[in-house]
Amino acid sequence: MAEHTIKAFDQEMDKLRGLIAEMGGRAESAIEKAMLSLQRHDKALAAEVVADDKRIDAIEAEVEKLAIEIIALRAPMANDLRDVIAALKIVGVVERIGDYAKNIAKRVPLIAANQRTQEPIALLPSMGQVATEMVQDALNAFAARDADLAVAVVERDTVVDDFYNSVFRTLVTFMVENPKTISECAHLLFIAKNIERIGDHATNVAEMVYYAATGQTLPDRERGGAQSQED
Amino acid sequence: MAEHTIKAFDQEMDKLRGLIAEMGGRAESAIEKAMLSLQRHDKALAAEVVADDKRIDAIEAEVEKLAIEIIALRAPMANDLRDVIAALKIVGVVERIGDYAKNIAKRVPLIAANQRTQEPIALLPSMGQVATEMVQDALNAFAARDADLAVAVVERDTVVDDFYNSVFRTLVTFMVENPKTISECAHLLFIAKNIERIGDHATNVAEMVYYAATGQTLPDRERGGAQSQED
Repeated sequence: MAEHTIKAFDQEMDKLRGLIAEMGGRAESAIEKAMLSLQRHDKALAAEVVADDKRIDAIEAEVEKLAIEIIALRAPMANDLRDVIAALKIVGVVERIGDYAKNIAKRVPLIAANQRTQEPIALLPSMGQVATEMVQDALNAFAARDADLAVAVVERDTVVDDFYNSVFRTLVTFMVENPKTISECAHLLFIAKNIERIGDHATNVAEMVYYAATGQTLPDRERGGAQSQED
Repeated sequence: MAEHTIKAFDQEMDKLRGLIAEMGGRAESAIEKAMLSLQRHDKALAAEVVADDKRIDAIEAEVEKLAIEIIALRAPMANDLRDVIAALKIVGVVERIGDYAKNIAKRVPLIAANQRTQEPIALLPSMGQVATEMVQDALNAFAARDADLAVAVVERDTVVDDFYNSVFRTLVTFMVENPKTISECAHLLFIAKNIERIGDHATNVAEMVYYAATGQTLPDRERGGAQSQED
């Protein structure tokens, strides 16, 4: 590329990264607000999370449009092209993280504000906390192209998975003992699953960051990339 | 593009479409086998679905590699570039459909082969059938660039959604009445959710096909594209 083209490419990539950072910040905030709305039975806050997801979707569309423009106008080669494609993939994963937060928020009005679900709901916030931190670290690793931080995120995925398995068992036991709560606990099961998926997706972002930074896939996992887990 | 470049581009796009068709066929087969393994308590068949998903993932990686090569070597403009990007997005969605099938299969060994889960399991096959047909039609619409067929797929999404809501209520009632089956029914709830998500993703493919064929997004939906639903 000619020098002015390289400069334009770098500027456009910076813009792309800035948009992804903004989107990541909004996704993190969505998870936190969704978990808070669940704990407080705050339907208004939950509705806010659902409404705000439109902005996350809009940024994704903006990133896609910009990425296609960069490819079409700058015709980046090799590593640069891989960087643009990686950004496109990461933005898709972040958008899905936002959708999981939205899904958690959507279930809040389905869970009645009474004492009987207090105990099972209390299982979820610390699990949500770990997942949120993974998302933060994965996005920080992306912004700083930090392979070590990316590895640390991937290693934490088993924490969320173990958390989920434990919550699943506890919720089932609670349902057996409190049949009147079964419908609400079913929604809590799905919320726990959504949190677990957020952890998986943070891991996927971290794997992509590691690959982009080192040119190598992480060992000991079935396959890198956004789609290695169940969904 | 020069004529030889146009020809090379068309040939490569044909190859790309062929790979996506193969991948789609494998994803459809995975859903069918997963549902069959559930009905028959066939753990070997379920394990086959899980193992076969690796091939779907491998084709996705092949499509991504080919798409990046096409962009890098042929520098397609405007519509052609949009076609390549659309193929990249559709392949990601098909891969996720395969993952949902894998997830259904993974739950089969967790559901004991006895009479007591026969009734709730019987709720699922016809729902699976509708979702499989949606996937088939979405991929046929893609292969034939058939906007009308794409619209028909999108219109069927509410059928799967209604099915899911009905199954959810029936399963919860069954759990209340049969507390010993709660753990197994929780897995059936997740399976029902996976089928519903397969329908959503078939709809997403159909929306992308419609957009690629007509240049317009479908009305009466929040937003086209792969990520409009909850996850």
